[in-house]
Amino acid sequence: MAKLLVVGTVAFDAIETPFGKTDKILGGAATYIALAAKNVAAVDAAIVSVVGEDFPEEYIQLFKERRVNLEGLEVVPGGKTFFWSGKYHNDLNMRDTLATELNVLADFEPKVPESYQDADIVMLGNLHPGVQLSVIDQMTSPPKLIVLDTMNFWMDHTLDLLIEVIKKVDVITINDEEARQLTGEYSLVKAAAKIHGMGPKYVVIKKGEHGALLFHNSHVFFAPALPLEEVFDPTGAGDSFAGGFVGYLAQSENISFENMKNAVIHGSNIASFCVEKFGTERLLSLKPEEITNRLAEFTALTQFDIDLV
Amino acid sequence: MAKLLVVGTVAFDAIETPFGKTDKILGGAATYIALAAKNVAAVDAAIVSVVGEDFPEEYIQLFKERRVNLEGLEVVPGGKTFFWSGKYHNDLNMRDTLATELNVLADFEPKVPESYQDADIVMLGNLHPGVQLSVIDQMTSPPKLIVLDTMNFWMDHTLDLLIEVIKKVDVITINDEEARQLTGEYSLVKAAAKIHGMGPKYVVIKKGEHGALLFHNSHVFFAPALPLEEVFDPTGAGDSFAGGFVGYLAQSENISFENMKNAVIHGSNIASFCVEKFGTERLLSLKPEEITNRLAEFTALTQFDIDLV
Repeated sequence: MAKLLVVGTVAFDAIETPFGKTDKILGGAATYIALAAKNVAAVDAAIVSVVGEDFPEEYIQLFKERRVNLEGLEVVPGGKTFFWSGKYHNDLNMRDTLATELNVLADFEPKVPESYQDADIVMLGNLHPGVQLSVIDQMTSPPKLIVLDTMNFWMDHTLDLLIEVIKKVDVITINDEEARQLTGEYSLVKAAAKIHGMGPKYVVIKKGEHGALLFHNSHVFFAPALPLEEVFDPTGAGDSFAGGFVGYLAQSENISFENMKNAVIHGSNIASFCVEKFGTERLLSLKPEEITNRLAEFTALTQFDIDLV
Repeated sequence: MAKLLVVGTVAFDAIETPFGKTDKILGGAATYIALAAKNVAAVDAAIVSVVGEDFPEEYIQLFKERRVNLEGLEVVPGGKTFFWSGKYHNDLNMRDTLATELNVLADFEPKVPESYQDADIVMLGNLHPGVQLSVIDQMTSPPKLIVLDTMNFWMDHTLDLLIEVIKKVDVITINDEEARQLTGEYSLVKAAAKIHGMGPKYVVIKKGEHGALLFHNSHVFFAPALPLEEVFDPTGAGDSFAGGFVGYLAQSENISFENMKNAVIHGSNIASFCVEKFGTERLLSLKPEEITNRLAEFTALTQFDIDLV
C-alpha cells in the first residue's frame, strides 16, 4: 500500500460564522488533510506535527480509530497546543483572525518516523517553510510526489525560504490571490506559467466556491465546487481538498496528469462535505456511499456530450 | 430551419479598458446575440431593434452579409442611435458607465415582422421589460422557447414589469449578483429555486470569469469560462453567451435539459472569443475551425473519467 506522509498543524480552533460559534475544537491543516485522505482512500497515512500536553486523549483516539499513524506527532510536556481563532463575515469569503497562539508550534522541529522516511507521497501542509524543508530533507528515498500547500503569510514573511521549498516540490496548491501575489500576474494562466518556472510541474489554483484549476504545462483542467444550498463553515476546505487529492493519488498509485484530474475531483468532493458543518464534524461522520453519491453529482454537474466534428 | 427572433439594442459603444480605447463602434445586445448565434449555427435569425439615421450602412451590411434578417430593424429618420460608453477597471470585473444616451431607444415600439411572428425561439436581449413584453405579445403562435436576459437596472426601476416578463419565459439568464438581488438569497442554489418559482423552468446564472450554472428543478450543470491569458474587453460577453446558447438550441431543435448543457458550453465557448478583442471584432472574424478547436479545449478542460462504484 502506498504510504502518505502529512506534515502540518494539529491545532485547536475556535470558529465563529454567521450560523454559530464553537469553543476550542479540533483543527489544523494536518488534521483536515489526514481525515480527508482517509475518507477518500484506505491509504497508509502518517502525521508529522506537534501538540501540547493539553491536547485531549479523545482527539488522539479519533486519529487512531481511523488508523492515522501518529509516531511523528510530538507531544510537548507542559506545552500548549497551537490555537487559532477566526470569525467569518456574512459572505464567508472573508474572515478576521481573532487570535493566533503559536505555543508549541513556535519551536517545532519535525521528526519523520523511520518507517515513513520512504513515503511515496509527501504532503506539506500549510506551515513554516523551514519545517517543510526539514521534512523533505529527512526523506531517505526520493518520494514519487511532493505536494505543497502554503499561504500569503509565508510570502510576506519568509519568501526566500518558501521559494526554496517551491523549487523542490512536484505540485503546489495555492489560492487565486496567493498565485497573483507570488507571481505579480493577474491572469491565472500567466501566474501558473510563472509558478511552473519556479519548479512545480503541476499547479493547482484554488478558487474557493468557484472551484479549482489544475495546470500542467499547456494543459489545464477545471473542477467546479459543488453548488451548495448553504456553506456552514469554510474552515479546512482547502486542506480537505489537498487531503482528498493526495489520498486518491496515493491509493491509485498513478501520478499522471489524467489521473490528477480525478484527484482534483476527489479533492473538491471531500471539501464540499467539510464545509457543511463546523470544523471536522462532517469529515468524522462521512459514509462511503455519501462520498460515492456526491461523486455522481459532480459527474452530472460537469459532464456533457458534444460531438466534435 | 428553426427560426430565431432576437430583440435587443443595436448601439454605438465607446469602450475604454486597461489595454486601450475605442471611438464609437458597433455594439448592443441584439448585435452580439445575433453575431454569436450565427457563428455557432446556420440559423434563420432576425433582429427586432431600432437605430437612428446616423447608423452606418457599413454596419447594416455586416448583418446582411451574415444573413441576419433586418426587417424588424427600424431606422428612425433624423434620429440618433443609442450610445453607451464605459470604462473598465484593472481587474475588468468592474466598470464605470461614462455615458448612456438612449436617443431613439427612448420611444422604441418594437414591431415583429410577420414572417417571424411564428419564430421557434425568441431571445429577449437586455432592454426595457415593456419592450420585451410587447414582443412576446406579438407572437402569433407560441414559441417553443422564450429566453430572457436582463440586468439589475430593470430590477431597480421597473421591477413589476420585469416580473411579468419573467413569468412568461422558459429560460432566464442573469448574473450572480442580479440573481441575489432579485431573490434576496445569497446562495445561488436557493436563488435559482426562487426564480423557478417565478416562472422560468431553466435558470442560467452567469458568473463571468467563473463560468455559468444551469439550473432545472433539482438538476444543475456547470460550464467554466475558459481560462484565458488575457481578457481584452469583456463587453458583450454575456450577450455572446446568450447568442451561442440560443443559436445552438435553434439549430439542434432539441430543448431538453441534456441538450441545454451543450448549449451552455457553446455559449461559453463563443463568449471566450468575444473578450479577446474590442467589441464585435473577434465575432466578425471567427472561423468555424477555431470554434471547433476551442470546443475541444472545453472538453479537455472539464471532462474526467472516474469509475463510480
